[in-house]
Amino acid sequence: MLPSLDRVAVLGLGLIGGSLLRALHAGGHECVGHDVDGPTRQAARAAGFAVSEDPASAVATADLVFLAMPLPALADALAAVAPGIDARTILTDVGTLKGPVLDQVRRVLPDIRFVGGHPLAGPELSGWTAGDAGLFRAAPWSLTLEPDTDLTAWLALAAVLCELGAHPVPTTAADQDAAIARVIGLPHVLAEALALTGLAGGELGLSLAAGSYTSGSRVARTRPELVASWCDGNAALVGVLDEVLDRLRRTRAALAAGGSVLPLARDGHAARMNWERRGAHPMDVRADVDALLAHGRAGGWITSVHDAEPVRLRGMRPNEPWPA
Amino acid sequence: MLPSLDRVAVLGLGLIGGSLLRALHAGGHECVGHDVDGPTRQAARAAGFAVSEDPASAVATADLVFLAMPLPALADALAAVAPGIDARTILTDVGTLKGPVLDQVRRVLPDIRFVGGHPLAGPELSGWTAGDAGLFRAAPWSLTLEPDTDLTAWLALAAVLCELGAHPVPTTAADQDAAIARVIGLPHVLAEALALTGLAGGELGLSLAAGSYTSGSRVARTRPELVASWCDGNAALVGVLDEVLDRLRRTRAALAAGGSVLPLARDGHAARMNWERRGAHPMDVRADVDALLAHGRAGGWITSVHDAEPVRLRGMRPNEPWPA
Repeated sequence: MLPSLDRVAVLGLGLIGGSLLRALHAGGHECVGHDVDGPTRQAARAAGFAVSEDPASAVATADLVFLAMPLPALADALAAVAPGIDARTILTDVGTLKGPVLDQVRRVLPDIRFVGGHPLAGPELSGWTAGDAGLFRAAPWSLTLEPDTDLTAWLALAAVLCELGAHPVPTTAADQDAAIARVIGLPHVLAEALALTGLAGGELGLSLAAGSYTSGSRVARTRPELVASWCDGNAALVGVLDEVLDRLRRTRAALAAGGSVLPLARDGHAARMNWERRGAHPMDVRADVDALLAHGRAGGWITSVHDAEPVRLRGMRPNEPWPA
Repeated sequence: MLPSLDRVAVLGLGLIGGSLLRALHAGGHECVGHDVDGPTRQAARAAGFAVSEDPASAVATADLVFLAMPLPALADALAAVAPGIDARTILTDVGTLKGPVLDQVRRVLPDIRFVGGHPLAGPELSGWTAGDAGLFRAAPWSLTLEPDTDLTAWLALAAVLCELGAHPVPTTAADQDAAIARVIGLPHVLAEALALTGLAGGELGLSLAAGSYTSGSRVARTRPELVASWCDGNAALVGVLDEVLDRLRRTRAALAAGGSVLPLARDGHAARMNWERRGAHPMDVRADVDALLAHGRAGGWITSVHDAEPVRLRGMRPNEPWPA
């Protein structure tokens, strides 16, 4: 049987934490929130939520603790919750890169039941007021399995995330960070490069910039420090940038020689359209580490966790393998 | 006094031409359309529009002719209208790159009153059914002035575009194509490179791709042949790709050395946010070539053309110069 996660603490009440507090409360969990920022605590309290003045007491009676602060504040948060947390508590986080978080948790709280998590939802807005109980509906949510991860804790947390409508994706920290280099790091680096280069030709370009500039540079609206926290220290991003540099260099050479961008445009178009059209089918997934990781590597996610003996999971998996 | 442009022919009834026919008709012009595709002609006729079976007769009585076919079809279209057109008719087009169009027109119809145009509106959909009379409201519309451009024709056409709610931007073909390399060519090349590279790491990335991949690769949904027609043959795009390659290479080197994407992210963020926030003020613009081109180069556009003696133009211009 899975542990019951009725009592939940959410530390950090920005967009993700604030949305979590709302969603978990709406789902019937007994929730308490905390934020280092006084006005944020006041706003959450004024909205009717239980808010603790101090992180250690917020986590003292919790079955499940979400660490939802920015990565640079994580070390302080881990030190602050350490006195209130015990071996029964499940600790998770919402950071973009899982490797650095895992390193810190292993250093500060080596004996805790920790499961790294990363919801892929709404990065453009921020703060308590932007929170939304529906933010995680259909959102992918990386949920990491390492050799030292407690599988029971992983399954219990996956069940809670499925209740929120999220799509838990079983993966290792290393695999998720490599994938994130491609689908978060790269889009942000390219958006910043476009935002800057697109407008560097003088005022005429400012009045002609329209749809493709607008969507292509949309995520350059994100706070630069956040973008850096999603990119810096992710070794996989270097290799991904080498790949994109190579493609752009070849396209540049073709254009300079009187050729065409068509080869790149055909491949890019096919990749995007195939991704949009890709279907998935429901299936059973075995509740063991190897089966879960194989499911995630194949592009699958979990849709429900049935607390039985043995635990039964349902998931979705793409209908066809992706073109190499 | 400006020539009256009551009778308008629109050749090519795809997204842009179909929207033009609807918008001009709604604005009280006497319109006739034509398309090389029979079912498209039928659909336009069924929607209540006058449609000619043959391009030469469509233009025979027109004061103003819009060439709204794809660039590869332009040579045939110019040959087809040549017998029906006279020195009084104003001919314009809607192609993305103005240099290649200008070359063709000068070759096939050297004595015609031609003004190159380029509306920056809705490239992602296509076809007659996607047409929308409101498509050009607040849309930038490059309108080229060359040494051989008839200023009176330019002003009369600008007046019609202002009636549609568009923002005519006075520019030369060379300047517009250089700007388009940055704000259309570059966003499309980067979107294609992202669409492809973002998903090249295997199935896990497919389930984790979310907001930033989606918006960054949005325009990779465009037909590849269209993307190529907006990029190929635009010499300025080579230099723009060199700039972006240099920025990406420096960011790659910083990451590989344990550094940060922050310098790029700060500059990209500032460029995007400054662009969004940039205000503009209304002003008078003199109806002469040098004043118009200076207005366009400064990031300005035209909002209205008053047919008086002398012609009076109002426009908008950014409040502050753009950061270098």
